[in-house]
Amino acid sequence: MIEPTTLSLSGDRIEAVYEFHGDVTEAEARINALRVEQTIEFPADLVPDDDIQREIVGRIESIDVVDSGLVRAVVSYAVETTGYELPQLINVLWGNSALLPGIRLADFTLPDSLLDVMPGPQFGIQGLREMFDAPSRPLLATALKPMGLSAERLAAFAHDLALGGMDMIKDDHSLANQPFAPFVERVQRCAEAVAEANSKSGYNSVYMPSVNAPYDQLEARVEAAMDAGAGALLVLPGITSFDQMRYLATRVDVPIMGHPAFLGSYSASPTGGVAHGKLYGTMMRLAGADLSVYPNYGGRFSFTRAECRDVATALKEPLGDINPAFPSPGGGMTLARVDEIVEFYGNDVALLIGGDLYRGDDMVATAAGFRAAVSR
Amino acid sequence: MIEPTTLSLSGDRIEAVYEFHGDVTEAEARINALRVEQTIEFPADLVPDDDIQREIVGRIESIDVVDSGLVRAVVSYAVETTGYELPQLINVLWGNSALLPGIRLADFTLPDSLLDVMPGPQFGIQGLREMFDAPSRPLLATALKPMGLSAERLAAFAHDLALGGMDMIKDDHSLANQPFAPFVERVQRCAEAVAEANSKSGYNSVYMPSVNAPYDQLEARVEAAMDAGAGALLVLPGITSFDQMRYLATRVDVPIMGHPAFLGSYSASPTGGVAHGKLYGTMMRLAGADLSVYPNYGGRFSFTRAECRDVATALKEPLGDINPAFPSPGGGMTLARVDEIVEFYGNDVALLIGGDLYRGDDMVATAAGFRAAVSR
Repeated sequence: MIEPTTLSLSGDRIEAVYEFHGDVTEAEARINALRVEQTIEFPADLVPDDDIQREIVGRIESIDVVDSGLVRAVVSYAVETTGYELPQLINVLWGNSALLPGIRLADFTLPDSLLDVMPGPQFGIQGLREMFDAPSRPLLATALKPMGLSAERLAAFAHDLALGGMDMIKDDHSLANQPFAPFVERVQRCAEAVAEANSKSGYNSVYMPSVNAPYDQLEARVEAAMDAGAGALLVLPGITSFDQMRYLATRVDVPIMGHPAFLGSYSASPTGGVAHGKLYGTMMRLAGADLSVYPNYGGRFSFTRAECRDVATALKEPLGDINPAFPSPGGGMTLARVDEIVEFYGNDVALLIGGDLYRGDDMVATAAGFRAAVSR
Repeated sequence: MIEPTTLSLSGDRIEAVYEFHGDVTEAEARINALRVEQTIEFPADLVPDDDIQREIVGRIESIDVVDSGLVRAVVSYAVETTGYELPQLINVLWGNSALLPGIRLADFTLPDSLLDVMPGPQFGIQGLREMFDAPSRPLLATALKPMGLSAERLAAFAHDLALGGMDMIKDDHSLANQPFAPFVERVQRCAEAVAEANSKSGYNSVYMPSVNAPYDQLEARVEAAMDAGAGALLVLPGITSFDQMRYLATRVDVPIMGHPAFLGSYSASPTGGVAHGKLYGTMMRLAGADLSVYPNYGGRFSFTRAECRDVATALKEPLGDINPAFPSPGGGMTLARVDEIVEFYGNDVALLIGGDLYRGDDMVATAAGFRAAVSR
């Protein structure tokens, strides 16, 4: 047994809700294993009845047997276990336990002392409404596609989509630095095309390049994007990390949209991973996303209405002093569904319609029709 | 329909194997959706019969009905879709399709033109064998625990573990920059303690701090670690990104151990996510890990023997000119299991035993017993 430890702790605690699927008679043993796994990863019998055992090891706050195959447990952790840093917060909530089968991180709440050091979205819902002179309507987002086009051709689309009144024209998330449309050339041409359209239309459209960059090229790409006049950034935190996005939100003075690429494996199984609202909602927001993209119900993907509602709620609900963020449902949305989607989410939504705007012969008119549909 | 595009492509292609679980009559439609989703994300009917349709959209190479609920398909992608960058390679292989239910990335192979730009492990198996003067025996790794101890007390353990002959003494992956043992103080004390032990023992033990750092503090922590004389780094690519690890492997001249924290949700479901060998093996290796930690079969976690074998195989099999890496099975391993684990993996394994070395009154002797067990 190791020598006893005395710690000076604030008493502030994180609360995490875990769902244990499977034989409920094993649940208590599994919860006990989890609360050790997420903290000291050490044989519990080697720790005396000291501050580590009582305060650092996760504490079981409640255990509820929901049904014969599901137990929900609340485990709390001393806020100091995170070091007040986002990477270690993620680790405490779902680091090693992600490796255990049949457990889902269903919810978590953070004390103010931790929320206070997470800057969150720079602009949030109110800031974006001011930026786009849109006091109450839904915001309009679209994407430059398809991969394989030259920067020049993507820029021509960007021009027409801006002229039609799209607020945000993002790179498709798969546009990186491919030879077809290298990053620097693409951001220069597209930002210029959007500025030109704005000068004709009077709108405040922004071009939003995707910065899914190698670690050591991030700064150069962000600088190139800002120099070119990009008005926002698309970030893929599943690939380049939530904490990189948090950093970017302190580094640039433009809005950030978080994209769910590579995150789907966390939410694909109902008996594992992380709940939709927490992953695409709270975590995106803690990491500074002003908008969070996710696949809407009824599109190419399989999110349910309830899961989409959870994401939107998590993006907008009170969270310390952190700004609320826009849900941006996408993934095969069409113009025909605009009314229905707005009815579902209310006006605080950034509708993301990509491919459907490329139909027909007059992209400016199609985009303008999209704008008109939400401005009624 | 958009105007036709002509591209200049190398002809080199990535091949990905996807497993589709569920109704096999829907498999072809799902495969067609996936090959578009991973590339152009665009209505296929708007793309003419051009180079984008033929070369950029993923190509179905084969479809095999394995049984009534499983189809395995090989889809190839033009290497240019990755821009020869790791973040976008991850995106092409498993970006949006991670959001689709019942699909697993089972395997992938990369052309030499892409492997050639991935540096991989700096040291690899041979380099680590030279570093630790261990021409043939298994390597020995252990962890400093538990969270909550002071830097001074962790350093005392580091000293004794080094004196007993451990090759690598890593921070527990949950040690970040907590007030109990702040990063800089911890690395200085632990590296000094290991150096002192080496001067007595003649061994080449290294201290391996965990750099699960905020994005904008990574460089400072790595510099502090290198200045202090840390001999290796522990990296959590699930939290701080695979590409950050790749970068670190070019930034420091010490070995890197990749840890699976937060990655478990990719492998927890047999009908989704990414196959164990690819995730904890090939991806860790592509991103520069000299050693990859994962939970061994029969420990606290649930990896099977076959899954562990797949990881070890992927770390060691030919992969362009990229160095092979050590499997480092851990997760509740004990001294009593050393012979069995070595028999399973062979000598090219870095055994990771943490908590079990803290049992009893004489840590130096316990560690020395671990070393003796593999040196017979």
